[in-house]
Amino acid sequence: MAKIKKDNTTKPKIKKTESANKKKYVYFFGDGKAEGNGNMKDLLGGKGAGLAEMTNLGMPVPAGFTITTEACTEYFKNNKQYPPGMWDEVLSNLKKVEKIMGMKFGDPENPLLVSVRSGAKFSMPGMMDTVLNLGLNDSTLLGLIKKTKNERFAYDAYRRFITMFSNIVMGIERSKFEDVLESVKRRNGLQHDTELNVDDLKAIVKEFKKIYKEETLTDFPSDPYEQLKLAINAVFNSWFGDRACTYRRLSGIPDDLGTACNIQSMVFGNMGENSGTGVGFTRDPSTGNKEFFAECLINAQGEDVVAGIRTPIHINELKKRLPKAYKELERIYTKLEKHYKDMLDIEFTIQEGKLYMLQTRVGKRTAMAAIKIAVDMVKEKLIDKKTAIMRIDPEQIKQLLHPMIDPKANVNVVAKGLPASPGAAVGKVVFTAHDAEKAAANNEKVILVRTETSPEDVGGMAAAQGILTARGGMTSHAAVVGRGMGKCCVVGCSTINIHEKEKYFVIDGKITVKEGDYITLNGSTGEVILGEAPLVMLTLTEDFHKLMKWADEIRKLGIRANADTPKDAKIAREFGAEGIGLCRTEHMFFDINRIKAVREMIFSDNQMGREKALAKILPMQKNDFIEIFRVMEGLPVTIRLLDPPLHEFLPHSEEELVELSAEMGVSVERLKAKNKELHEFNPMLGHRGCRLGITFPEIYAMQVRAIMEAACELWLEKVKVIPEIMIPLVGHVNELKFLRDLTIQIAEEIKEKYKANVSYSIGTMIELPRAAITSDEIATYADFYSFGTNDLTQTVYGLSRDDAGKFLPFYINQHILDEDPFVTIDRKGVGAIMQLAIEKAKKVKKDIKLGICGEHGGDPSSIEFCNEIGLHYVSCSPYRVPVARLAAAQAVLKQKGLKLSKSTL
Amino acid sequence: MAKIKKDNTTKPKIKKTESANKKKYVYFFGDGKAEGNGNMKDLLGGKGAGLAEMTNLGMPVPAGFTITTEACTEYFKNNKQYPPGMWDEVLSNLKKVEKIMGMKFGDPENPLLVSVRSGAKFSMPGMMDTVLNLGLNDSTLLGLIKKTKNERFAYDAYRRFITMFSNIVMGIERSKFEDVLESVKRRNGLQHDTELNVDDLKAIVKEFKKIYKEETLTDFPSDPYEQLKLAINAVFNSWFGDRACTYRRLSGIPDDLGTACNIQSMVFGNMGENSGTGVGFTRDPSTGNKEFFAECLINAQGEDVVAGIRTPIHINELKKRLPKAYKELERIYTKLEKHYKDMLDIEFTIQEGKLYMLQTRVGKRTAMAAIKIAVDMVKEKLIDKKTAIMRIDPEQIKQLLHPMIDPKANVNVVAKGLPASPGAAVGKVVFTAHDAEKAAANNEKVILVRTETSPEDVGGMAAAQGILTARGGMTSHAAVVGRGMGKCCVVGCSTINIHEKEKYFVIDGKITVKEGDYITLNGSTGEVILGEAPLVMLTLTEDFHKLMKWADEIRKLGIRANADTPKDAKIAREFGAEGIGLCRTEHMFFDINRIKAVREMIFSDNQMGREKALAKILPMQKNDFIEIFRVMEGLPVTIRLLDPPLHEFLPHSEEELVELSAEMGVSVERLKAKNKELHEFNPMLGHRGCRLGITFPEIYAMQVRAIMEAACELWLEKVKVIPEIMIPLVGHVNELKFLRDLTIQIAEEIKEKYKANVSYSIGTMIELPRAAITSDEIATYADFYSFGTNDLTQTVYGLSRDDAGKFLPFYINQHILDEDPFVTIDRKGVGAIMQLAIEKAKKVKKDIKLGICGEHGGDPSSIEFCNEIGLHYVSCSPYRVPVARLAAAQAVLKQKGLKLSKSTL
Repeated sequence: MAKIKKDNTTKPKIKKTESANKKKYVYFFGDGKAEGNGNMKDLLGGKGAGLAEMTNLGMPVPAGFTITTEACTEYFKNNKQYPPGMWDEVLSNLKKVEKIMGMKFGDPENPLLVSVRSGAKFSMPGMMDTVLNLGLNDSTLLGLIKKTKNERFAYDAYRRFITMFSNIVMGIERSKFEDVLESVKRRNGLQHDTELNVDDLKAIVKEFKKIYKEETLTDFPSDPYEQLKLAINAVFNSWFGDRACTYRRLSGIPDDLGTACNIQSMVFGNMGENSGTGVGFTRDPSTGNKEFFAECLINAQGEDVVAGIRTPIHINELKKRLPKAYKELERIYTKLEKHYKDMLDIEFTIQEGKLYMLQTRVGKRTAMAAIKIAVDMVKEKLIDKKTAIMRIDPEQIKQLLHPMIDPKANVNVVAKGLPASPGAAVGKVVFTAHDAEKAAANNEKVILVRTETSPEDVGGMAAAQGILTARGGMTSHAAVVGRGMGKCCVVGCSTINIHEKEKYFVIDGKITVKEGDYITLNGSTGEVILGEAPLVMLTLTEDFHKLMKWADEIRKLGIRANADTPKDAKIAREFGAEGIGLCRTEHMFFDINRIKAVREMIFSDNQMGREKALAKILPMQKNDFIEIFRVMEGLPVTIRLLDPPLHEFLPHSEEELVELSAEMGVSVERLKAKNKELHEFNPMLGHRGCRLGITFPEIYAMQVRAIMEAACELWLEKVKVIPEIMIPLVGHVNELKFLRDLTIQIAEEIKEKYKANVSYSIGTMIELPRAAITSDEIATYADFYSFGTNDLTQTVYGLSRDDAGKFLPFYINQHILDEDPFVTIDRKGVGAIMQLAIEKAKKVKKDIKLGICGEHGGDPSSIEFCNEIGLHYVSCSPYRVPVARLAAAQAVLKQKGLKLSKSTL
Repeated sequence: MAKIKKDNTTKPKIKKTESANKKKYVYFFGDGKAEGNGNMKDLLGGKGAGLAEMTNLGMPVPAGFTITTEACTEYFKNNKQYPPGMWDEVLSNLKKVEKIMGMKFGDPENPLLVSVRSGAKFSMPGMMDTVLNLGLNDSTLLGLIKKTKNERFAYDAYRRFITMFSNIVMGIERSKFEDVLESVKRRNGLQHDTELNVDDLKAIVKEFKKIYKEETLTDFPSDPYEQLKLAINAVFNSWFGDRACTYRRLSGIPDDLGTACNIQSMVFGNMGENSGTGVGFTRDPSTGNKEFFAECLINAQGEDVVAGIRTPIHINELKKRLPKAYKELERIYTKLEKHYKDMLDIEFTIQEGKLYMLQTRVGKRTAMAAIKIAVDMVKEKLIDKKTAIMRIDPEQIKQLLHPMIDPKANVNVVAKGLPASPGAAVGKVVFTAHDAEKAAANNEKVILVRTETSPEDVGGMAAAQGILTARGGMTSHAAVVGRGMGKCCVVGCSTINIHEKEKYFVIDGKITVKEGDYITLNGSTGEVILGEAPLVMLTLTEDFHKLMKWADEIRKLGIRANADTPKDAKIAREFGAEGIGLCRTEHMFFDINRIKAVREMIFSDNQMGREKALAKILPMQKNDFIEIFRVMEGLPVTIRLLDPPLHEFLPHSEEELVELSAEMGVSVERLKAKNKELHEFNPMLGHRGCRLGITFPEIYAMQVRAIMEAACELWLEKVKVIPEIMIPLVGHVNELKFLRDLTIQIAEEIKEKYKANVSYSIGTMIELPRAAITSDEIATYADFYSFGTNDLTQTVYGLSRDDAGKFLPFYINQHILDEDPFVTIDRKGVGAIMQLAIEKAKKVKKDIKLGICGEHGGDPSSIEFCNEIGLHYVSCSPYRVPVARLAAAQAVLKQKGLKLSKSTL
């Protein structure tokens, strides 16, 4: 930034005809009339649109103009040159401002000063901060002094301007200026900036200019037009600043929107005790309560608020001190809220008792506030229910469903991982699933800390309060299972080094945490906290339930939950689930009391031996189903037969093998040989799902038996059960045909035995491309389909979820992919295959029931897609059920043209 | 089979009108006229159709009739009851036979005897053997004696009948009867059956009947009609015999064809020295030479030939002994060959000097004979070129392209694995790839014996004569690479137990083979032979080349080869390849001189370090390309950029790690940490293909540089090069876009540097479902597509090729799948996805070049599919190029309605 291009001062003459076709790059506002309005955020940015709207509403907005976002994008297209005509428009609009304000930009007698501010469509951190007092130089300074008759004020404004311009426009470190200020204050024994006198400020201005020259090798620009041009460039350039780019990537904001630039005549909050500057919200952004929530700093400019040196006064104090200005503010914010029909965030300045509005926009709020405000505004008849629904970001209502760390508590954050599953958890550290289960049996609260988890750990994960892993991403085993359980989970915390055998871990090579030490996890931020942080549980409000009811009235998709235990099923039902879309039976196999029988089965070399072992599991599995069916009385329960490869049920470490060897009376060699025999190069594509059911039909036979016996027993008790038996990983119609026959044969036999007329259905997961492609064959033998989009994404993309962490983040960084396909359904690939499957299925079975049970079932964007393609239900983890209910309603409303207005924090 | 249902003797009366609509189940032949003909193999079976055709040609065929295959299938549908009317038809046809022969079935004075034989559409081992002399009982025996005036002959016929009926129809062990025969002979000091006198035979008949009663608990059936019915049942039932089912499964013959049943009046070859029975081929089935090839057994019935007790005489001997009969035979076989326009297999009997024809069908032949006969018959104007092409089984011409074990040699087969890659190999046993390479450097011939192979072994595999593995299936790494190299390979030889460290293996726990011992592999049969078996190499005949030329004139598909080395490229070109469809660059990385630099690259933690290591590989890789381009001058060479995950280039065993640590000066811990870091749960779906190219662009940059520098240097030498750069594993258009840009940038830079105007194209493999589904996006950035059907099958099916061996054989056994999708393209799944990709690609790029480079490229059925869907070329291993040329021509002819006539052995 050291060298600046001189601008082309010869202005091209533009013919009338040309100018008629020319794009308009600058929009004026002021004197009660604006060329733009509040709907033109795309072109004017949020700030520009708000200023235009307020101007049109007759509110006291200092005159100014907005350079459009289009000008910015063309600036970048043209190798950082303004588009033709833009600068002329700036100059002519400046003339209009001068006329309204009765001042002249750069006039040594009666100088107009302006602020320059960025303002994109979406509010974005990392964009350029405000430059105030632009237009000052050694000669206009004199004019300001003359006009205000306040030399101290003028010099104070000047030194502020130099600081802001140097820092914000030229990138010189602010501390260089602050150091000078501090040393002057120190020298004179002063505490506050306000105590500096004119001479101090004069000396400071001189010193500041020297710093500028040292840093840029040029003099501080005295030409106000050059100042303005440099400031506009800086606004544009900040669009591609590092922080802005990062933020856009994380928020999914496209790079080609560009930012607008607002140039507005200055008003001064630092003209004495009857002046000030403030910000506020029309309602409480934390609670949503209907009370004006604002703060004001007397005798200050905006940047003082940022510096945080002085404490602002509460709005009630302002009411006392400047009642007239306060009354005007009250009138205006009330009018604004009625006009915008939403809670607003406003900025204002009071100059010598007169109020000026500098910004308004829809205010950010917590999930809790968002719900309360939306419901209240329906009551107030400001908005209708549909609008209320579109006001809530479904992702954020999760905040309400988990305990959280008391925001008032002082905590010691020692590490940070990925926020894999929200909520908070406190407990003693343990290092094995077994220890977690033991502790849970003693009613101890523990955090399970592992390098990474595997299906063997599921019991321990369920027993723990929270899970912390050193490896793995947002879709690692721990993360997926954690979210499924609604359990707080932090993964991929790479700064911790786990010594599992010795039972301790080290953070950053410094802090050692031993087994039994307390830690706290924040699953919403990924923070790891030393010791026991206090937790608070938000209770679900009346408003929350009301909003959910409205959503239920609108949505078309059914909402089910993925639940493997009666406990999860109960939570799901409480959150409004209308059935279970995925009950995984393998988690039941890992239970500490059953795994032995499971392993016995695996070690049997013949069907009889396997059947003997399975007979031991049967009554236990049957009991699981009885409990789940009971909880879900009257609602469908989709049970997936065994899915994972058998080797997942065997231990692999030497230690565990020795233990198992003793327990089973099988030599370690044989155990190892079995492990070797069962080893797979690509277990995801291996001997699992229905392939197990076909090669070892006795396993599925046992499971069907358990399901049907449970169903029949409850039927005899007059409990209404709706079992749906789901065959996983079908790729060829013959697989389903074979297993459907097996299932029907056993089911009918059991119904006959119990004399119970239980209805059941048999369906399959669509999780392989081949199943989708041959869906017209497969549908013939399926009463329902459930799209297993986790595996479908893996196979369609040829992408292992467990391994993608090595390059997927890079892909998203580099814009190779826009989104993580394991989070949001890849519509063009996976989605297209789903549509193909549906189309083909409906050709042979018009009324086939269609659902989804992959992780995507809880993702709002994916839910929207599921609604579009006509699924009957989505199924997600119990804690996401409310998210899904809301998202499903929003999907319907979006189809009708409504837009989501996300303003939650 | 002990209890037999009595048949319903009350015959239903059928009205005329009904009978008009009724199906015809029995077809008569005899007296110069047959109801059927030679084209009715579906209905009459091969034998029945042949008998009908010969009858119509006026040849001497004993009268008889054929019960249709339809009767058989309806028999099974009706729970093993004859379809209505069938038995009546049998009886009325029998009447016609009686009339022609002037004898009566079951008549004690002038008895008609018949033979009963099965005869399906395809000749099948395991079907029921012939029952001769049916109709004999104690009273018709007397009639036979009276008629023939030959009591000995009659009793001999009777004892034969009882044996055959008991064994073949009733399933009683033949040895029980043979034991009696032997003991009589022993008792009387006789050597041959012919020496038995009438009394001996009478006693034997008595004894045989006793055996029958003991075994079946019923008397030997004296009613000829009951005999007939039981024999017909036995023919039908043999369709679902174990061996027949197994054979059908292995040969892909459907279960619902059924077998026909031929009932024919007896003629006797055992009526003295002027009688006999024989079989023959109209040309030599081994060489194809045009000379009658037949043998005859004088004074014998067909079963004596089977028993193999007496040695048959050469046909020239017959000519001397029975010149009249011989002359008639010569006249008939010549006429038959002209009529059928193919080499035929015939059966005949001479009864007292008169010739009778009992069977004719197209004769089985070796690949060599098939080619010679086809080409000769074109010369003889018997058939046209197209017919000649349809006469060759493409799978079998592989026999001609590999050395084979001298069929005359006596070898010691000690184990058997799967015949993964044909040919034969002799060498000393080695246990590591490294040892194989060392030995090859010393010009030693070795067989590489490993539990299973991995990409690290490729160098050793190339250096060895053959490969033997204890594990893995037909599509395991060893098998695929072996076939690719045209190298003899036996895999999954589970009876061998390898002690790699101690350098020996044990067969079946008995035979120990040490390093350095000689073994021989037969890759066409899977046999492992102790010691050095003599090998012979078939040289390709003039006829072979002629046939290939004819095929080339007809086929539309281009034929390319998958070749990674100049040597393979040369072989491919010699076999007629029109380009290289897949040149894998990773095999070049495993070279013993390069792997160090590759590993150095992997261990570099930054781009600069990687580039430094890659710079060492560049000149070597460039040289590879120069040599390959030179061999393939004027033909396109498709080079695939690096595909496998990086961990494949690192060793994993402790030993190798220690060695590498010393070599690289990197600690074992760091090596292990790297292995752990690079470890993937599902490497097939991991960080490989273009994902590597995107995360480490310097790797692909080096490869593109090597390709283009090689191409430019040759261009300057005026060698015509056509490089096609192929990006693997593309799933998203942005991947291809990114890498296409990178490739073009480097390529243009190099062309500029050399001032060489080399044309090149950039394409991608379609091996992920997502690439196919979004083909309309991807095609925009691809000059060509090559279907990578190996990986496409893995992802579409969700099936790991390396792991499928655990259940795929079971699936095929159980008819869940009809074929191994890794051998023949799964048309409904993978094929449908391919068609979708083509359709979508053509929408945006009509003339996109389309090929296939998966293993399927060499499979005839898959080649047919590729021809149907309009690919431009297939690419297969060099040794399969002739197979593919032929199959591609056949595909075109099949589309025109011609049928493949496989009669190779």
